[in-house]
Amino acid sequence: MSSSDRREITGFSNPTVKYLRSLREKKHRKREGVFLAEGLRLLTDARECGHVPKTLVMAKGRDAHPLLDALEADVAAAGGDVIETSTDILTKITGKDNPQAVAGVFTEFDTSLAALDRSKANIWLVAQALRDPGNLGTMLRTGDAVGAGGLILIDDCADPFSVEAVRASMGAVFTQQIAQANWDEFITWLRQGEGQLVAASLRDAVPYRGAPYAAPCFVLVGNESRGLPEEYELACDLRVTMPMKGRADSLNAAVAAAVLSYEVLASLDS
Amino acid sequence: MSSSDRREITGFSNPTVKYLRSLREKKHRKREGVFLAEGLRLLTDARECGHVPKTLVMAKGRDAHPLLDALEADVAAAGGDVIETSTDILTKITGKDNPQAVAGVFTEFDTSLAALDRSKANIWLVAQALRDPGNLGTMLRTGDAVGAGGLILIDDCADPFSVEAVRASMGAVFTQQIAQANWDEFITWLRQGEGQLVAASLRDAVPYRGAPYAAPCFVLVGNESRGLPEEYELACDLRVTMPMKGRADSLNAAVAAAVLSYEVLASLDS
Repeated sequence: MSSSDRREITGFSNPTVKYLRSLREKKHRKREGVFLAEGLRLLTDARECGHVPKTLVMAKGRDAHPLLDALEADVAAAGGDVIETSTDILTKITGKDNPQAVAGVFTEFDTSLAALDRSKANIWLVAQALRDPGNLGTMLRTGDAVGAGGLILIDDCADPFSVEAVRASMGAVFTQQIAQANWDEFITWLRQGEGQLVAASLRDAVPYRGAPYAAPCFVLVGNESRGLPEEYELACDLRVTMPMKGRADSLNAAVAAAVLSYEVLASLDS
Repeated sequence: MSSSDRREITGFSNPTVKYLRSLREKKHRKREGVFLAEGLRLLTDARECGHVPKTLVMAKGRDAHPLLDALEADVAAAGGDVIETSTDILTKITGKDNPQAVAGVFTEFDTSLAALDRSKANIWLVAQALRDPGNLGTMLRTGDAVGAGGLILIDDCADPFSVEAVRASMGAVFTQQIAQANWDEFITWLRQGEGQLVAASLRDAVPYRGAPYAAPCFVLVGNESRGLPEEYELACDLRVTMPMKGRADSLNAAVAAAVLSYEVLASLDS
């Protein structure tokens, strides 16, 4: 792509800048059906997973990079928009003091349960009413690491397409499938096929090490402060408990999901 | 304590309010040698670990609670300051939209390596240049759960006494010892006694499951974006690797510390 095809934006009050900034708010993302991701690494992960941004925003004065050239060519070939702007404006768009030199606007994915193929992976992560977008992004990242198929969000979770969640996912938002549903929809869908639902729990639970995990295994963690509702725990096929040697009676939700998922991975692989 | 011993503050511009707000900044915390913790649960954990706040701030209109009465009595008995104020002012102090009904100002702990007794625990967590206070607090919380002795912060880490770290620790800031040192100080101290230094690494590493862990085991994780410097990895007694089934080549630092610590715990307990 020749540099003449790029559009340069210099003013903070430019409508495109306003539009891009507005994507930090959930209501604007939902209305537009898009989300924002930053950084050459994330955007390269996206590209290699078949996701090309609709709009590519690059900082003037950035270092040249062959992967960035490839990305720009793809965006142009797909009829997307390529914008050059100042680092200051990029800071304003991403809300980050030291912004990456590049950001992209992506179309949101289909997040219906019907789009999931449970036979594709041995592990699936499930979060219930998880409120912290960082925890949610971290769960996506862990899911990628353990070879999970994706993350299913139950009830009122944080938005997986928020800038914070996308950032914490370190690109896993593009490799993991994401579904959103309420509990009744989820449990109905789950019971229509194979699947073992496992929760970290203190209720009638067995030690998490050596528990009888079975694929596809759905690892369920609950809300950061309230944990899982009793009804949800009782609907699980397996309740497991992790040692708690100190004063605390629970782990951070993303940590619990990771410790449990790595145990499931080791169990299913052995 | 009779309610007449409480001091009521109603104005946002009150010097005590300004002082308490200033503790959200590291330089003010360091100058004063104190930090802020919120919530009855955290403050009760602190009290049961022998830490009584110098200043107790309570919201007017809070629900009565016997643990809060006990806390107030302890603060008064120790000659501390008990303040009642509005929820709005408490919001301003803690920087949290839905503040807990109570907050306390605590004296910072001794964070010298010399204060650590390594024989007290089988596991110690070590973080190098960890920049995210949430990750740091989460590591403290995990340390409490695995029965670790404490968290050693190497090089330029986030402040473990920041509001965010204290919040994420869920009280573990009071149960875990915390030490701060640079790498040379740490490695010199470590080699003066028993201790196995273990890092999650890709360099000449063995699988983390079934690795020959030995107590006291020091679990080292590196900076969120750069990981550990090569020199630090090479100084480790054991380098272990966790499966990475997806595109990512690393886990979130707090997650890596947790997965590894739980493995060490299982190994040392068996």
